[in-house]
Order: sequence, then structure tokens, then C-alpha cells
Amino acid sequence: MTPTTTPTITVFERSPDRGRGLARDMRVRWALEEVGQAYEVRLVSFAAMKQPAHKALHPFGQIPTYEEDGLVLFESGAIILHIAERHAGLLPHDANARARAIAWMFAALNTVEPPIVERSMAALFEKDKPWYAERLAALDEQVHARLGDLSRRLGDADWLDGAFSAGDLLMVTVLRRLESSGLLQTYPNLLAYVARGVARPAYQRAFAAQLAVFTKAA
Amino acid sequence: MTPTTTPTITVFERSPDRGRGLARDMRVRWALEEVGQAYEVRLVSFAAMKQPAHKALHPFGQIPTYEEDGLVLFESGAIILHIAERHAGLLPHDANARARAIAWMFAALNTVEPPIVERSMAALFEKDKPWYAERLAALDEQVHARLGDLSRRLGDADWLDGAFSAGDLLMVTVLRRLESSGLLQTYPNLLAYVARGVARPAYQRAFAAQLAVFTKAA
Repeated sequence: MTPTTTPTITVFERSPDRGRGLARDMRVRWALEEVGQAYEVRLVSFAAMKQPAHKALHPFGQIPTYEEDGLVLFESGAIILHIAERHAGLLPHDANARARAIAWMFAALNTVEPPIVERSMAALFEKDKPWYAERLAALDEQVHARLGDLSRRLGDADWLDGAFSAGDLLMVTVLRRLESSGLLQTYPNLLAYVARGVARPAYQRAFAAQLAVFTKAA
Repeated sequence: MTPTTTPTITVFERSPDRGRGLARDMRVRWALEEVGQAYEVRLVSFAAMKQPAHKALHPFGQIPTYEEDGLVLFESGAIILHIAERHAGLLPHDANARARAIAWMFAALNTVEPPIVERSMAALFEKDKPWYAERLAALDEQVHARLGDLSRRLGDADWLDGAFSAGDLLMVTVLRRLESSGLLQTYPNLLAYVARGVARPAYQRAFAAQLAVFTKAA
């Protein structure tokens, strides 16, 4: 099942996070590093992302995309699942454990990430609005509800369900979006979980690669 | 690969949508109907959903959950993918087409649904706030950005990528959340797409089953 060509992913030409590894290509880079699959990178500007050529690859004009042997994929979750299905290392072999790891992938993206993104967007675009303080309090409460549940489930385990999986990979990248908010400080086990994730050599290689793109552009 | 026992899903004892089929169990019911798999239903009250017994099944205290032969799953996307992997009818056989259908599943849940949910929540909880009109305009703009892209990609096709798939199933249920907003009216092809989805006999059976639960409770 090893692909016959090196896949190509698209990434921001100049990431709005200034190389902090919060853009969604970071997840895909990390997954590829975990399984030892080399990849090519194509830089896309904000202007180009909204043009028909890129929207043919990604209908919503975003990054990352993934191209390999005539297959074009978008959505970081789908790309990571595709990589995990073709390589060992990101999903357990046992069928039930595999299904549960995939549940954590969806949980990271559909249950934990949305309130975190909503909070980040408000912090970016509503900071000067008269309602910001009241909105932020409500948004923080939403995020805390998710973090509290996640922290209780994780307990003192290293990973969410047995060995490290694509579910942990996505959850760690989602939680990292809260680093500058201070909200994670209430949950020592989640802080330690994120620290375990970013300490992985594959994460470190992926992080360095995305930072190099930003540094070169800046 | 046919399961040896009938799966059990959890659903709202009294759905807040009053039986309009917008709760997330509807997606799972529809998927089970598409593949012809019988299922059992266990009703859960709002109070019980937040108790440890239910959180052992669903860490975030939500519905639906899915139990089968010692496997417990949460997240509607993960449950539907699990069903689609064990039964014919929801994912194409061709590997590349299958990966693309899964990309649409993630797109429905991670790219299209979040701004729609954010708008619904604002409409519920911020209606009396002085900022509501300004917020709503911004939220509508976000939703329209997604709908415009989706409408362009769908074009005059029946489904998002070839035959009906789990990607369409999720996208139709996500778009249905906009029915009362009027925002879909700008996109005749999306209206027709939703209409094609809900006209499927499997959808109709699933809808009737969830409505019966609400009607009995009311």
C-alpha cells in the first residue's frame, strides 16, 4: 500500500501564525513524519488560495491539500486518516481500538476545535467591540466545558485511548491553539499531554519544517 | 463483517428541535437505514447525559453513542464511518473515490457545520443582546462564504462526488440546520440537493423514527 510517488501538500506561503505551527498543514506534516513518509510542499498565497486553480483542489479555498497519484484530498482530518490507513503507526490494528481512535479524530475536529476556533476568531475580530468582554466570558465557558470533560477522560493516562494515535495527534494540535489564551493552565494533565505530543521527534521535525517556510518568507 | 448483535444508539428523550430531525442521532439513524441495519434506541434525558454513567460512553455528555459487541463509539461522524466500513452503500469501492467521500464527511463536520452551529447558537442565546444585529450579519457572511463555495463545487451534479455517499448524508443533515434561517434560498442547487437527500426512503424512515420518539414524549 506504499504510494508510488511522493505526496505534495499545500501550505501558507506566509502563515498568519508567524511560524507557531498552528496552521492546519502542521497536522499533516506531523502525521507524515510519524509514518516516515517524505513529502513535497507547494506554497500558496492568500490571493492564490481563493482562485479557481486552488479551489479545484480545495473547494473552500483553504490549506492543506494533499495530492498523490491522481488523488486530490482536502480536510486535514481526511488527509490524516488516509495516511493512517496506508501506513502503520497512527491507528491500532485491533478493529475496535481503531474505531475508537477515529472517534477521537472526529471529537478533536468536531467537538473540541469549534469552540476554540470561535474564541480565537472573536479575539482577532471582536476585540474592539463594546461586547467583547461579555462574549469572551461566554466563549471561555464553552471552551472550559470541553476541556473539563477531556481532562476527566484523559485522567493520568499518557494518551486518550491506549497507544498514541491519529486521535491524539489531532487533539494535541487543537489544544495548542489555546496556548496563548492561558485557558489550559487549569488542567495540568492536558498541559502534560500537549507537552508529550510536541516532544515527539516527528512533531519536532514537522514543526521545524513549517517554521523554515515562514522564516524564509519573512 | 456483519455485526452479530443489533447496535444500540442513544438519542434525546425529548429533542430540543421538537422532532424536526436536526439532532445528531438523525444522521446515524439515516446511515443505518441506508445500509439496512436494524438498531435499538435508548432514550437519555438532559440530566442523565451529564452523569458519569453516560459520560463513560460519551466523554462530552452528548448524543448519539453507538454500542455493539463490546465496542462503544461517540461522534456521529465516527459512527457513520464505522457503519460505512462494515456495510455496502455509503462509501465507493474505488480507493481514491472512497478517500474523497471521506473528505466530504470531514468537510461537512469541520468546515461547513461550525459556522452554521455558531449562527444557530447566537440566534438562540444572543437574540436579546444589543450586539445581535451586527453579530448576525457577520455570522451570515461566514455561512454564505461556505455555501457559495459548496454551491459552486456541486454545480448541477446530484451528489458531491459521484454516487450518494456518507459525505452527502452528513452534508445534507448539516445544511438542514439552515432551513429556518432562509439562507439556503440563495442557492437553488443546494436546496435541490437537500431535497434529494430527504426524499430518500432511508431518510424518510429515519425521520419518522426520531419524530415518533418526540411525539411519544410530548
